[in-house]
Amino acid sequence: MHNTSWDKLFTNVRLATMVEGGDPYGMIDARCLAVQRGQIAWIGTYEDLSNFNIPERCERIDLGNRWMTPGLVDCHTHLVYGGNRAEEFEMALNGLSYEEIAKRGGGIISTVTETRKSSEDTLLEASQPRLNESMAGGVTTIEIKSGYGLDLETEIKMLEVAKKLGAGNPIRVRKTFLGAHALPPEYKENSHGYMDKVCKEMLPTAHALELVDAVDAFCENIAFSVDEVRQLFKVAEQLNIPIKLHAEQLSNLHGAELAANFKALSADHLEYLDEAGVKAMAAHGTVAVLLPGAFYFLRESQQPPLDLLREYGVPIALATDCNPGSSPITSPQLVMNMAAILFRMTPEEALAGFTRNGARALGLLEEIGTLETGKQADFAVWNIDHPAELTYRIGSTPLYQRYFSGNAS
Amino acid sequence: MHNTSWDKLFTNVRLATMVEGGDPYGMIDARCLAVQRGQIAWIGTYEDLSNFNIPERCERIDLGNRWMTPGLVDCHTHLVYGGNRAEEFEMALNGLSYEEIAKRGGGIISTVTETRKSSEDTLLEASQPRLNESMAGGVTTIEIKSGYGLDLETEIKMLEVAKKLGAGNPIRVRKTFLGAHALPPEYKENSHGYMDKVCKEMLPTAHALELVDAVDAFCENIAFSVDEVRQLFKVAEQLNIPIKLHAEQLSNLHGAELAANFKALSADHLEYLDEAGVKAMAAHGTVAVLLPGAFYFLRESQQPPLDLLREYGVPIALATDCNPGSSPITSPQLVMNMAAILFRMTPEEALAGFTRNGARALGLLEEIGTLETGKQADFAVWNIDHPAELTYRIGSTPLYQRYFSGNAS
Repeated sequence: MHNTSWDKLFTNVRLATMVEGGDPYGMIDARCLAVQRGQIAWIGTYEDLSNFNIPERCERIDLGNRWMTPGLVDCHTHLVYGGNRAEEFEMALNGLSYEEIAKRGGGIISTVTETRKSSEDTLLEASQPRLNESMAGGVTTIEIKSGYGLDLETEIKMLEVAKKLGAGNPIRVRKTFLGAHALPPEYKENSHGYMDKVCKEMLPTAHALELVDAVDAFCENIAFSVDEVRQLFKVAEQLNIPIKLHAEQLSNLHGAELAANFKALSADHLEYLDEAGVKAMAAHGTVAVLLPGAFYFLRESQQPPLDLLREYGVPIALATDCNPGSSPITSPQLVMNMAAILFRMTPEEALAGFTRNGARALGLLEEIGTLETGKQADFAVWNIDHPAELTYRIGSTPLYQRYFSGNAS
Repeated sequence: MHNTSWDKLFTNVRLATMVEGGDPYGMIDARCLAVQRGQIAWIGTYEDLSNFNIPERCERIDLGNRWMTPGLVDCHTHLVYGGNRAEEFEMALNGLSYEEIAKRGGGIISTVTETRKSSEDTLLEASQPRLNESMAGGVTTIEIKSGYGLDLETEIKMLEVAKKLGAGNPIRVRKTFLGAHALPPEYKENSHGYMDKVCKEMLPTAHALELVDAVDAFCENIAFSVDEVRQLFKVAEQLNIPIKLHAEQLSNLHGAELAANFKALSADHLEYLDEAGVKAMAAHGTVAVLLPGAFYFLRESQQPPLDLLREYGVPIALATDCNPGSSPITSPQLVMNMAAILFRMTPEEALAGFTRNGARALGLLEEIGTLETGKQADFAVWNIDHPAELTYRIGSTPLYQRYFSGNAS
């Protein structure tokens, strides 16, 4: 008999561990899982269980033969922002051109304006309902980017709000500095000047305040060039900050290759990624983060190179890309379905995208993303008969219970 | 002063009445709405309100400046069915052909098999969670079709289940007989024989049991011909049963024109509808029910003729088409968003599709579908700043409270 100090024992549960290489979804025969001090202490069968002395105080939870998966990881969001773009959405559908909408104050700059003028409390209050929706969808780890400030003060304010959201809710928040998201009006036609400011002032300041878990940029003709992004990445490298990149969404600037050469955690979007880029990502372990919500919302037609990513073994993550302009979505299930319908990803790939590979895209695979002994006890328990249902059904979430660090919430 | 017998008085509410012809969304300045015996008794301003004597017992509800719309109407669903098609969905994404999937028992026949062998209680239990999701999305009236029995006993069982769902929940259920949904295995290559049975035995029996609010059929090369459908409609006409039709989804058989000539309530799907069909529908007041969920799920590319429908003034309804094979969706908001993104419908058209025109497609516009004195007090109250948000955001529902016949539920 082995003595234990378990805090919680889950029984009568079907486990989709999402561990790679075994049965689909990492399904195993074990029906029991024990938690100790917020971590997975043990996974096994009823037979194995009889070998353990379980303390009286250990809470026993019968999950009624439900499915448990790792808590979901949403590895790419712009969840903190001010304002609302619903009316702009309506203007476009009523036939107004993007030029006319921009004249009326629409576009990303409208979100920048609203975010700049929102107090920290207002931003917190606006973002909390979106975070609630995310948690209600089974998310236990979320990445939140800055990038609607485009000035030092507002970028820091956004990261502070992200930090407070993490402190005030049962969810792990990773903060990404995205000062190089778009060119602020003050630097019109002077992107070099703005990138200088980002590199010399904004990123180092935010980093010194311990607000930066990763740095990101938007590498695109309408945003920043490969050379500008390289300048930023060099600074990140000196500061030892992990790198991510919005790359190849609207054209192929070879940003993913640049990012991979800097050993980036991930390159995201990737509709226009070519084989050279895929090879570079595979060589450096850079995760491909696909964002079908934006693909859907923007009515894009260029498909990301899914077969090449599979062929070269690049891990594929999915994320909501929650943002007011091109992906007003907080639901992982909906994004998993879009990945299946629009990109032809399988339900297993889709769930791996929101667990194991989402964790990888945040550099957190050693702590979360699979159900394995020693990992954080972040779980989602579902009212489903089969894990494929998580990708199949849409518009509703079958979440039964969410556990963060072993606690129901 | 006017004496009243009001039961409930809602104040501090913004009203999107969805009445046609005035301001967008039928918005009005009035901020007060009174309910008496489950119906809307009065709508007016605070100034008008001072002219009424309100009884002591009248409940007063301050809605905190939220938006109220008519309760949503989902006018085309197959919500009652047995089994689950998630694994078949997964097989297709794992590369199995439809032939192979059919060999393994997949396709509509798998749902027929499961529905036939499910008891009435099992079907009720399977359908209740879907109805709960529908209600959580703001739906107060739902149409439910038979059509997974394809034999007398099971078709009646499905309609009985639909009836019980209506009796047991705060929602109005309309039952549509869809015996001519597909050819049952027993009548393989004998669709005339099956249609004879539908016309001579199944429909008259279900009608005599008072289980049929409307009759529907699937007019398509893979289902029933125009001549067969005409035979059915003649019987419906004799029995004085309103008519609906699945038409022009995969090809143009001119089914919508046939339906319109029978003064059908609606023709549904309509991707391949042509101008002659649109004209016929306009002439006979037949509603066009568009189903973007199935369009999305089946990855169709043929767009329904939205501009022609607008030009000829055909009322356009939307519905979830909730079904296990091609639209596993219960969320009106998601379908409204798909109508905007995929078909370029405006947010106002989308909301009209789930209110006024959904009611029209069920022949219920005199009772529901708009906020007007004398109509049923079916409301949805929303946590939104503008009605366009209902179409803009997806994957979560901002419903604050739902009222059915004046009661919160």
